[in-house]
Amino acid sequence: MRLHVPTPLRWSDLDAYGHVNNARMLSLLEEARIQAFWVSDDIAEHAAGATTAVIDASPGTRTLTLIARQEVEYLAPIPYHRTPLDIELWISQLGGASFDVCYEVYSPDGVAPRVLYTRAATTIVLTDAQSGKPRRMTPDERAAWSPYLGERVAFRRR
Amino acid sequence: MRLHVPTPLRWSDLDAYGHVNNARMLSLLEEARIQAFWVSDDIAEHAAGATTAVIDASPGTRTLTLIARQEVEYLAPIPYHRTPLDIELWISQLGGASFDVCYEVYSPDGVAPRVLYTRAATTIVLTDAQSGKPRRMTPDERAAWSPYLGERVAFRRR
Amino acid sequence: MRLHVPTPLRWSDLDAYGHVNNARMLSLLEEARIQAFWVSDDIAEHAAGATTAVIDASPGTRTLTLIARQEVEYLAPIPYHRTPLDIELWISQLGGASFDVCYEVYSPDGVAPRVLYTRAATTIVLTDAQSGKPRRMTPDERAAWSPYLGERVAFRRR
Amino acid sequence: MRLHVPTPLRWSDLDAYGHVNNARMLSLLEEARIQAFWVSDDIAEHAAGATTAVIDASPGTRTLTLIARQEVEYLAPIPYHRTPLDIELWISQLGGASFDVCYEVYSPDGVAPRVLYTRAATTIVLTDAQSGKPRRMTPDERAAWSPYLGERVAFRRR
Repeated sequence: MRLHVPTPLRWSDLDAYGHVNNARMLSLLEEARIQAFWVSDDIAEHAAGATTAVIDASPGTRTLTLIARQEVEYLAPIPYHRTPLDIELWISQLGGASFDVCYEVYSPDGVAPRVLYTRAATTIVLTDAQSGKPRRMTPDERAAWSPYLGERVAFRRR
Repeated sequence: MRLHVPTPLRWSDLDAYGHVNNARMLSLLEEARIQAFWVSDDIAEHAAGATTAVIDASPGTRTLTLIARQEVEYLAPIPYHRTPLDIELWISQLGGASFDVCYEVYSPDGVAPRVLYTRAATTIVLTDAQSGKPRRMTPDERAAWSPYLGERVAFRRR
Repeated sequence: MRLHVPTPLRWSDLDAYGHVNNARMLSLLEEARIQAFWVSDDIAEHAAGATTAVIDASPGTRTLTLIARQEVEYLAPIPYHRTPLDIELWISQLGGASFDVCYEVYSPDGVAPRVLYTRAATTIVLTDAQSGKPRRMTPDERAAWSPYLGERVAFRRR
Repeated sequence: MRLHVPTPLRWSDLDAYGHVNNARMLSLLEEARIQAFWVSDDIAEHAAGATTAVIDASPGTRTLTLIARQEVEYLAPIPYHRTPLDIELWISQLGGASFDVCYEVYSPDGVAPRVLYTRAATTIVLTDAQSGKPRRMTPDERAAWSPYLGERVAFRRR
């Protein structure tokens, strides 16, 4: 099962070439990931069923989600859109203390034809904020994320 | 009359102090301004009545909106919110080739108590993309923006 | 007396208009300020005489330097330069717990003719990291900064 | 042969975790790449022997350097340094219209012990600005870049 996370662009995401900058794409993936996996401060929002959201990210949290690896393929330049990009997001691997998130970034919902702009994969390590060491994934986290397990995203060139 | 523009934060707007960075606030004001004043590529969106939107910002446009001046008061640190900030936006001056936009940036709709985070004002000069010179405001622009004229935002310290 | 802080641009400071983005200018001012006022971790660097540098900014510091106010005038668009902008920086006011920094941002040293791109002023409040309250300027800070006191930057439009 | 490009950090590169943000790393790699490969506007600088610099990047250039692929391994969190990171940069592949740049990002020169923070590789496609199509690498470009050919960076996990 894949999550669909509508992710708004900003005009300032464009660089001097007039397209979304390649570095900024990683901030868009980060934002989609946070919307998907972090517990909201807003209990109502959470109760409404964002069931993947089990990482407590409030200030003073005991877990940091550190990035160990990113792989990104840019398939087409992305112009500014006023409506959010449609980021599909799923999990390709649940390890002991880490997991891999995969993404396909599409043109906004309702824009025809649908364009696949970007494919990406991120390795995240759950890290104890105090010790700076990896910590084991909890059963709650594993249970929340298992429904989103799927094949690793198929990169065109490697 | 004031416009209310819901403006989403990103986690990457936070700096090492854990609050929205003071420079990033200007990108948030920019995005609110664009949502308010620029013609959408998406005709349906436009027809739905974003009547302030008369600046054509499509690639190849003949108008650049250059920033001549910014004034910003930061009243309280802004934490990460998953729901959009509520930016109130109006116009305090319509000149021959320039106009002043005023803002009050509030905590997200529905968060109690409502907090006023930031006050700001921006002077924008309508500029011809070819010549780089200021160009006169059109009657259409003046008509579209006049309903939003109001008093200049009251800064606390000057 | 004014400090001259060479401040490198990045190509990613440009926006889709091909000029340094107005929000990004505040990050450039921030970086110039940090080079001028923060104690280096590198003792040699400090000993070499960056005598304005008395704010301890190492992780776990007890002082946050919060921004209360920014005022910026953009006088000319800034293209990408491979060599650093020349930012002149001085202090226009030393209060009990706050101070005002003024800036003039010039084209890189050696580029003729010299262009004044931007004028700006920032109000900074020294804040206790624990309590979040303003804290008094120390005699050391006042002594270090007094030589750089000067007239407030002259804005063209107010 | 590897190039060493000193690449300054900004305090605003840090995120709320107090480390250089993973997306921002790509802007640092971009800046190192530009210093290495783009022709300076400043002829003196160029004459001084930045012999890799053959891509004309002045406004109105006929070549865009589009990013097709990024792969990044984050080996250790990067704190703020006042002195530039030491980015080693070389080329692992020269194709017909594309080339691969490899990087190792190290702690600033003079900081002991030397730390390897990041490994990365970028695929760049030389693109005609008018047509948006890939264009062939010129003999001059191939000659300028050949001395920097080396083995592909060794990623730890793939």
